[in-house]
Amino acid sequence: MRFSPLARIAYNPPMPDRIFTSDNVAPACAEIIAAVAAANSGSAASYGADHWSARLREITSSVFEKEVTIFPVASGTAANALALSQIVPPFGAIYCHETAHIMTDECAAPEFFCGGAKPIGLPSADGRIDGAKLAAAIAFAHEMGVHNVKPAAVSLTQAPEWGTVYRPREVAAIAAIARQHGLAVHMDGARFANALAYLGCSPAEATWKSGIDVLSLGATKNGALCAEAVVFFDAKLAHDFERRRKRSGHLWSKMRFLSAQLIAYLHQDLWLANARHANAMARTLGAGLESIPGARLLQAVEANEVFAALPEPVIAALERARFAFYRWPFPGLVDAISIRLVTSYATHAADVADFVDTARRSG
Amino acid sequence: MRFSPLARIAYNPPMPDRIFTSDNVAPACAEIIAAVAAANSGSAASYGADHWSARLREITSSVFEKEVTIFPVASGTAANALALSQIVPPFGAIYCHETAHIMTDECAAPEFFCGGAKPIGLPSADGRIDGAKLAAAIAFAHEMGVHNVKPAAVSLTQAPEWGTVYRPREVAAIAAIARQHGLAVHMDGARFANALAYLGCSPAEATWKSGIDVLSLGATKNGALCAEAVVFFDAKLAHDFERRRKRSGHLWSKMRFLSAQLIAYLHQDLWLANARHANAMARTLGAGLESIPGARLLQAVEANEVFAALPEPVIAALERARFAFYRWPFPGLVDAISIRLVTSYATHAADVADFVDTARRSG
Amino acid sequence: MRFSPLARIAYNPPMPDRIFTSDNVAPACAEIIAAVAAANSGSAASYGADHWSARLREITSSVFEKEVTIFPVASGTAANALALSQIVPPFGAIYCHETAHIMTDECAAPEFFCGGAKPIGLPSADGRIDGAKLAAAIAFAHEMGVHNVKPAAVSLTQAPEWGTVYRPREVAAIAAIARQHGLAVHMDGARFANALAYLGCSPAEATWKSGIDVLSLGATKNGALCAEAVVFFDAKLAHDFERRRKRSGHLWSKMRFLSAQLIAYLHQDLWLANARHANAMARTLGAGLESIPGARLLQAVEANEVFAALPEPVIAALERARFAFYRWPFPGLVDAISIRLVTSYATHAADVADFVDTARRSG
Amino acid sequence: MRFSPLARIAYNPPMPDRIFTSDNVAPACAEIIAAVAAANSGSAASYGADHWSARLREITSSVFEKEVTIFPVASGTAANALALSQIVPPFGAIYCHETAHIMTDECAAPEFFCGGAKPIGLPSADGRIDGAKLAAAIAFAHEMGVHNVKPAAVSLTQAPEWGTVYRPREVAAIAAIARQHGLAVHMDGARFANALAYLGCSPAEATWKSGIDVLSLGATKNGALCAEAVVFFDAKLAHDFERRRKRSGHLWSKMRFLSAQLIAYLHQDLWLANARHANAMARTLGAGLESIPGARLLQAVEANEVFAALPEPVIAALERARFAFYRWPFPGLVDAISIRLVTSYATHAADVADFVDTARRSG
Repeated sequence: MRFSPLARIAYNPPMPDRIFTSDNVAPACAEIIAAVAAANSGSAASYGADHWSARLREITSSVFEKEVTIFPVASGTAANALALSQIVPPFGAIYCHETAHIMTDECAAPEFFCGGAKPIGLPSADGRIDGAKLAAAIAFAHEMGVHNVKPAAVSLTQAPEWGTVYRPREVAAIAAIARQHGLAVHMDGARFANALAYLGCSPAEATWKSGIDVLSLGATKNGALCAEAVVFFDAKLAHDFERRRKRSGHLWSKMRFLSAQLIAYLHQDLWLANARHANAMARTLGAGLESIPGARLLQAVEANEVFAALPEPVIAALERARFAFYRWPFPGLVDAISIRLVTSYATHAADVADFVDTARRSG
Repeated sequence: MRFSPLARIAYNPPMPDRIFTSDNVAPACAEIIAAVAAANSGSAASYGADHWSARLREITSSVFEKEVTIFPVASGTAANALALSQIVPPFGAIYCHETAHIMTDECAAPEFFCGGAKPIGLPSADGRIDGAKLAAAIAFAHEMGVHNVKPAAVSLTQAPEWGTVYRPREVAAIAAIARQHGLAVHMDGARFANALAYLGCSPAEATWKSGIDVLSLGATKNGALCAEAVVFFDAKLAHDFERRRKRSGHLWSKMRFLSAQLIAYLHQDLWLANARHANAMARTLGAGLESIPGARLLQAVEANEVFAALPEPVIAALERARFAFYRWPFPGLVDAISIRLVTSYATHAADVADFVDTARRSG
Repeated sequence: MRFSPLARIAYNPPMPDRIFTSDNVAPACAEIIAAVAAANSGSAASYGADHWSARLREITSSVFEKEVTIFPVASGTAANALALSQIVPPFGAIYCHETAHIMTDECAAPEFFCGGAKPIGLPSADGRIDGAKLAAAIAFAHEMGVHNVKPAAVSLTQAPEWGTVYRPREVAAIAAIARQHGLAVHMDGARFANALAYLGCSPAEATWKSGIDVLSLGATKNGALCAEAVVFFDAKLAHDFERRRKRSGHLWSKMRFLSAQLIAYLHQDLWLANARHANAMARTLGAGLESIPGARLLQAVEANEVFAALPEPVIAALERARFAFYRWPFPGLVDAISIRLVTSYATHAADVADFVDTARRSG
Repeated sequence: MRFSPLARIAYNPPMPDRIFTSDNVAPACAEIIAAVAAANSGSAASYGADHWSARLREITSSVFEKEVTIFPVASGTAANALALSQIVPPFGAIYCHETAHIMTDECAAPEFFCGGAKPIGLPSADGRIDGAKLAAAIAFAHEMGVHNVKPAAVSLTQAPEWGTVYRPREVAAIAAIARQHGLAVHMDGARFANALAYLGCSPAEATWKSGIDVLSLGATKNGALCAEAVVFFDAKLAHDFERRRKRSGHLWSKMRFLSAQLIAYLHQDLWLANARHANAMARTLGAGLESIPGARLLQAVEANEVFAALPEPVIAALERARFAFYRWPFPGLVDAISIRLVTSYATHAADVADFVDTARRSG
C-alpha cells in the first residue's frame, strides 16, 4: 500500500488536441479553475447555504433580468431529468425532437426521474421541433384519453442536436402551442451559450420572454469542470425542487465548488466569449469544407457543430492525419459519407486550418 | 449584464474556523486541489474513458489488494443509493441501523434508486447493527412471505453515526448472518478513512475480507472537493452498473476531475493522514471534556465525532464564545443536554484547545 | 389438448369452515354473486363509462352524505398505494402505525406507487397512532429539512391491526395534527364496515367529518369477490387519479363487474349487516375465551379480530381439533402463547361455540 | 342511507348490441360466469394457495405442452407491464411495434412497472415488427453504449393491432434476432386466442416453440369477466415474480375467482370456440364490405378486426342506423375515410348481416 511520489502518478499522455469529437473532451478554462481554487478558503456552510451559492442566485437573476431560482448540478443529464421531473407527472408525456439528448443519450434518465413518464420524439430535418407535428401529437394523446400519457411538457434543445439554433420567435411559437394545451416548456440548454452567441439576443429573450419555464443551463461543454444548473423563471415552479435534487444525490455537501464555477462562467460574459470562439471555429470549418469539391454541408452551421458530407477519400485522409471526429449517419443520405465536427472554446484555430487544408489537399 | 471584475465578486466572508458542526464544512485539502488543477491539461476522453480513471482503478485495486471496479460519483447519497440499487430489487428490504444516513439523511434516495425498496432501521445504543435484531428482522420477513419485502441487503455504516467504529470481526459477524440468508452486504464508508485510521487494519481487512460486497468510499468529508465512489469487490456484481450511474446523472462528461481527486486521496496514504488528524482532534476534545465536572461522554470516541453531555451553563458559554456545533438529542438522556462535535482533517489544534478551555472555565 | 367435462374439473375439496385465520378465506356472499351475474347482460361501455359505475358514484355519495368520487380496484393493496400516490410526492413521508398493512403486508407497494416515498411506522400498544409520537416524528423531519423526507400524509387503519376501533374523535385528533402541518389524511378501510358496525356512527362521521381526505373502502374481506375502492371526499384531490389507476393496470375494461359488486355491497346496508355478524362472532369468541382459566384477551375485541393469550395445552387441543388459526406473537408477551382469531360475515355461530367449548374442555 | 330494493337498482339500459367498437364491451360468457359461481363454495386458502390456482397451473401446462408457471391478473395492462418488468431492467429498451398497446394504450405502465425502462416503437404497415428495423434499432443502441438504454426485450402483439396475425415462422424470425443479441421475447396475447384460431397451430407452436419467453394471455376480450395471465415458459424466468405481482396490487386475496375463470376459459377449448366465432364474424364483415362499390379493406382480415375504407355516405348511413364503431385514421390514407370494426365471441350474425346490408344499400 505504498505508492510512488505524485510526480510519478504519470497519467498517460492526454489526447491529441486535433480533436473534433465533442466539446466535452476539452479541459476547463483557466478562469473556472481559478474560481474553484479561490473558493477553497476556510470553512463554508454546506449543502448550498454558502455565500457562493447566494451570490450565484444574484448573478443569474441579473443575467436573466428576472428573479430566478437556480440549482447547480453535476451533469446535463441530471439537470434535464430533474427539471422535467418537476413539471411532468409520472403518467405524463414529454414532447421533444426525436434526436433530443433526453430521448437517445441519457439512458432513460427522464423516465427514471419522472417515475415513468414518456418522452415522445417528433421528427424534423434540422433538429428543431415542428409545431404542426407537436400539435398533432398532443391531439392524438387527448383523443386517446386516459389510455395514453397526459401531455405535460415540451422540451426544446438549444442549440439543437443538428447544429442549428432556434430563433426566439420559433421558441415562442412552440411555447404558444404548449401553453394552449396546458403544457410546461423546458429548454435543454447544454449549448445555450453557443445559441446565445449566435443569436445576439439577451438570455431573457431566448428563454422566459419566449415562453420557457425552466432551463437546463449548461457550462461543462463550454469551459467548466462540471457545472450545469436548473434555472426556474417562476419561483412557484421550483417548489420542493430542493428535495428532488437531494434524493437524486445532486445536492453537493460542498456546494460552493459548483456555485463558484457558475459564477465565474457568467461573470463578465465569459460564457459568451467562450461560445463565440467555439462558434467561430465551427463557421471556419464549415466554410472551409464547403469550398472543397464534392463536399457539402448538411445543416446550416449556426452553433458549434458542423455536419458535412465528404468524399470517402477525404474522410480517410483526415483520419490518417489523426484528426479525431465521428462518422455520423445523416438520415436519407445514401450517396455520400457524413461526419460530425464539434468545436469548443478550446479549439485551436491552427487545428481548424490544418483540418481544412488536409481535406482540401486530399479532395 | 456587466459585472465587476472577478476580484470584486467579493464572496461574503467565510464561516469562522472554530466550527465543529460537520466535517463537510471544511475546504478541500491542498493536494486534491492541486490534483484537479494538474488534470486540467489538454483534451481527455470523456465519460470515464480517460487515463485518470484507468489509473484510479489500478490504485484502488492496489489499495484493496484485489482487482476492484470503482465508479466515482459526486455525493455520498449517490454512492449509497446507486450501490444499493445494484444489489436490491425494487421489492427488497435493506436492513440498516435506525440512525443510518440512508434511513434519515438522504431524502429516500435508496427508495428512489431501487425503484421502491424498503430500508428497515434496526435499533441499538451505539449505532452498530445488533446481529440478533438483524436475524429476527430477516426471520419476520421470511415468515410474512410475499406480503413483505424480500430480505436483500444489509448496509453497515463505517464509521457509524454515533462516532464508534465496527471491528472487522463485528463486520464479519453481521456479514455472516447476511450471507446465511442470501443477502448482499453494503458498507456506507462516508467516514471509512476515519474508521481505518482508528482500526489500523488494512482496507482489505475492513471490507471484503470481512464480507463486504460493495463499498461507498467517501472522500469529501475527509479532504476532497466532491468525490465519493462505489467500489465493487466482485466484478460480476458491477454488471451494467455503468448504466445506473449514467441514468442518474452521475456519469460526468469530464470524469477525469473526479478520478484525479480520488487518485490524490489514496496516493501516499493522504486519506489516512487526514483521517488520523481528524480522529486525534476528536480524541483530544473527548478527553478534555471528560475531565470537566458534570460532563460525560455518551459514546466511545473512536472516529472523528464526540457525543457529550454537558451542563447547560457550559454549553451556553461555548455558544457565546462563538464555537459552532449542534445540540444533539441523545435517546433516553433526560437529565442533561447533549451535543455533537465533529472534527475534520482541517480542524485546528488551537481551536480544540480553546474549546476545552472555554468549557472548563465555565464548568 | 382435450379436457374432461366441466363437472370433472373436480376442484380439490375446499378448506374446512372451522377457520379463523383470516376474513379473506370466506367466499363471496350470495347478494354479490347475484349482482355480478345480473350485470352480465348485453354490451356495456368499457373502462368505467358504464351505467353501473355511474350508479355506484350516486350510491356512494348518498352513503357518505357528500358528493364523492369513487374508483373501484381489485385489491386493498392497490387501493392504499394508489390513494397514497395521489397525496404523497416521491420524496414524501407517510406516517402510519408500525403494524399497518402498508408498512408490513404490501411488499412495498406504497414505495412503488409513490415513486419512492417512505412509510414511517409509529409504535403504540393497540394499533392506533399515538398523536404525540406523530407530532414528534413530523417535528424531527422538519428539523432535518431537505435531508429527510417531507411530511406528506398520515395513514390510519380502520379498524386497526389489533382488532380495536378508532373513535371519530380519535381520528379527528390525529387529523388535526396532520392538518396543522399540511399533511393529507388517508384511511385504510380494509375493515371499515367492521369499524362502522362497532361505532354505530354514520360513514360520514367516521371519515370526512373527522378529517379524512381519502378512504380505501374495503369490501373483499366482508363479502365481495374482489372489490375495493378509493373514495375521495374532495373532487379536487382526485385530479388525474384516473391515469394513476390506468397505468397500474387497475382500470378494468369490464368495470361493471367491479362496480356491480360495490353497489350490492352498499345497497340496503348489506355491508353493515355482514360486518355486524362478523363482529358478533368475534365478541362471542372473546367472551368465551376470557372465561377460561389461564386465558386472557390481549386487546379489546371491537371489530372482528380476537387476540388472546392461552395456555399451550389449550392451543394444542384446538389445533388437534382442526381449527385453523394463527399463533400470533404479541410484543412483550413472554409468559404465554398468543393467538389471533379472525371472523367474517360467513363465520358459523356453531363453529364459534365449538371453538370455545373445545378450549374450555382442554383448559 | 336507505336504498330501494335490489330490483330497483335499475341500472340504466345497456348499450345496443349492434356494437363493433371493441371486444371489451361484450359481457362474460355463460360458462365463465358459471365457473365463478361454482368457485364460490366454502372457504378457500387466500392469495393463490387455493385449489383452483393449482388446477389452473396443471391445465395451462397441459394446454401449452410444457410445465409453465402462470400468474393470473386483472387486466392486460397489468399482465404486460408485469411481464416486461421481469425481463427488462430499469435502464432497458423494449422494442415493439409503434402501434403496440404497451406503446400507446397503457398510460406508460411499462415505464412504471419497469422503473423507467423505455419502449421503442418500430414502424411497419401491418402492425407486425419488421425484423430489419428491429436489428437496426438494436445496433443503434449498441453503438450509443451506456448513453442509450440497453436492448433488453422485444414485445410482439399477437394478434397485432391492425387485425393481422403473425405466423409462427415470423415470430421465430423476430425471436431469433432478439436471441442473437441477448434480448428476451414477450408476447402480448390480448387476442392470442383469435390468432390461434386463425393459425390452427398449437399454443406451443405459437409461443415457446417459436421463441417466446413470456406470454400475456388474454381472456377478458374473449369471454371472461376480467382475467388475464402472465405465463412463463421457463420457471427460472419467473423467479420472485410473485412479489412483483403483490406489490402492484394484482395478487387477489380471493384468487380462486381469477383462476376459476381461466380454468373455464381453457377447458374444452372454450377459448378457441369463442375466438373462432369472433373471427368468423370479422371475415363475414370484411367480405361483405369488400363487395361494396367504393369500399376496400385496408388490412387482411385474419383475426377479429376489420379495417376498411368506405365512402363517407356509407359511413354516415351506418352511423344513422345506430351501429357503433370508430372512425379510425389509417396512415397515409387521404382520399377516403377509414373505420375499424371489432367483433367478439358475442357478436350476433344478424347484426353483421344487417351492417353489411345497410352499407350496401347506402353505397
